[in-house]
Amino acid sequence: MGSEEHMGDASPRSRVEDLLYRYAEALDDGGFADWPGFFTEEAEYRLIPRENHARGLPASLMLCTGRGMMEDRVVAIREACVFSPHVCRHLYTNVRVAEGGDADGRLDVRANYAVYRTTEDGETVLLSVGRVLAGVVLEPEPRFTRMDVVYETFRIPGLLVYPI
Amino acid sequence: MGSEEHMGDASPRSRVEDLLYRYAEALDDGGFADWPGFFTEEAEYRLIPRENHARGLPASLMLCTGRGMMEDRVVAIREACVFSPHVCRHLYTNVRVAEGGDADGRLDVRANYAVYRTTEDGETVLLSVGRVLAGVVLEPEPRFTRMDVVYETFRIPGLLVYPI
Amino acid sequence: MGSEEHMGDASPRSRVEDLLYRYAEALDDGGFADWPGFFTEEAEYRLIPRENHARGLPASLMLCTGRGMMEDRVVAIREACVFSPHVCRHLYTNVRVAEGGDADGRLDVRANYAVYRTTEDGETVLLSVGRVLAGVVLEPEPRFTRMDVVYETFRIPGLLVYPI
Repeated sequence: MGSEEHMGDASPRSRVEDLLYRYAEALDDGGFADWPGFFTEEAEYRLIPRENHARGLPASLMLCTGRGMMEDRVVAIREACVFSPHVCRHLYTNVRVAEGGDADGRLDVRANYAVYRTTEDGETVLLSVGRVLAGVVLEPEPRFTRMDVVYETFRIPGLLVYPI
Repeated sequence: MGSEEHMGDASPRSRVEDLLYRYAEALDDGGFADWPGFFTEEAEYRLIPRENHARGLPASLMLCTGRGMMEDRVVAIREACVFSPHVCRHLYTNVRVAEGGDADGRLDVRANYAVYRTTEDGETVLLSVGRVLAGVVLEPEPRFTRMDVVYETFRIPGLLVYPI
Repeated sequence: MGSEEHMGDASPRSRVEDLLYRYAEALDDGGFADWPGFFTEEAEYRLIPRENHARGLPASLMLCTGRGMMEDRVVAIREACVFSPHVCRHLYTNVRVAEGGDADGRLDVRANYAVYRTTEDGETVLLSVGRVLAGVVLEPEPRFTRMDVVYETFRIPGLLVYPI
């Protein structure tokens, strides 16, 4: 499936879900290379522990301000994971879409997620559970203007050098 | 996001999904206080083991008949959980909506769920897996007229003093 | 809920989701008997390890070519599982639907899944995580023309005599 073949069923909700699910596919089956392309040029991506988010603390485990930093991150991942393949599966649920209220037609998006990681010998563990709080523009094509991944699990913190 | 900002994409299916996902958010991020408000005044809420449901046995782990009993439950939870924070994440999937067949326009709703619980040190465990069988009215605003949570997991039965 | 009570909300996407979720219900709550009926007469069903799928290897753990083989499989399951009840819960997420590009109006469908299994004493384990790649026709009624279940988990391979 290419980018945005949504068969005319082009409600904003459908287009946002399509964006999110293609994003997951790029991470799970595409080796991260396409990851920055899902964001606008100035978009901010953050991995934040739930605790910090609840308290309004800015500290995040990963922070990428702009697509350039995301591209640097992809290079770093490629160098780091020569030895251990990282097979993940993102399950997004409870997807909600609402008008952002600004003039730009930005949409507020929320979703819950579970990410599973499978080792080379076929053992699957829950890597992370939490939620995604994002902004999305639909034109000229659907992209994230920001994404906060608010995670609850600390089980394998070392793996969180990867975006979720 | 407030109650029901669904951007005109107001098919019954979308409105039911929105209700279910706001319900999850009230449990996961809102501390239970808003839980009764998702039900009609006379609604019945039940937590039922799958085994009992399959055999038609009435025995349930939790039974709230009417919103008043739900409000009592919320008070009891607040008193009980002073010491151990209860951080959960509800993932609803396989949501189906069908006409209930009665004159009131009640909708029959089914969904599968997984609920994860994360402890204070960041360990996440699967709390419960099962399905939800519910009735929903859309007017004057979307609310549950009944909810049966048919659960399969007994892993941490003590925690099921909380609604799911 | 019977087959296809989708309340006029009959977009192709909704009808495909409804098919997938009724399929899950047949496996989880219906004892497999209705499983073959979700496929067209000549449909192919395959359970494939992710590794083989990625390399284009044909080797699959289960292969049913046509509905007749699926019916044989159902008989075999019934004989095999006299002693250990097999209680599962399928969670499908990230459902995407696109035109298949052929003249027959076949739709390409993708979804991620997690399947949980609960033992008789109420312990739930993750049985399998992966994704579904399927073809669907909507007329005369929605059915799968093929289904590849690309699984990542090998945790309990003995249980994969059951379709997923």
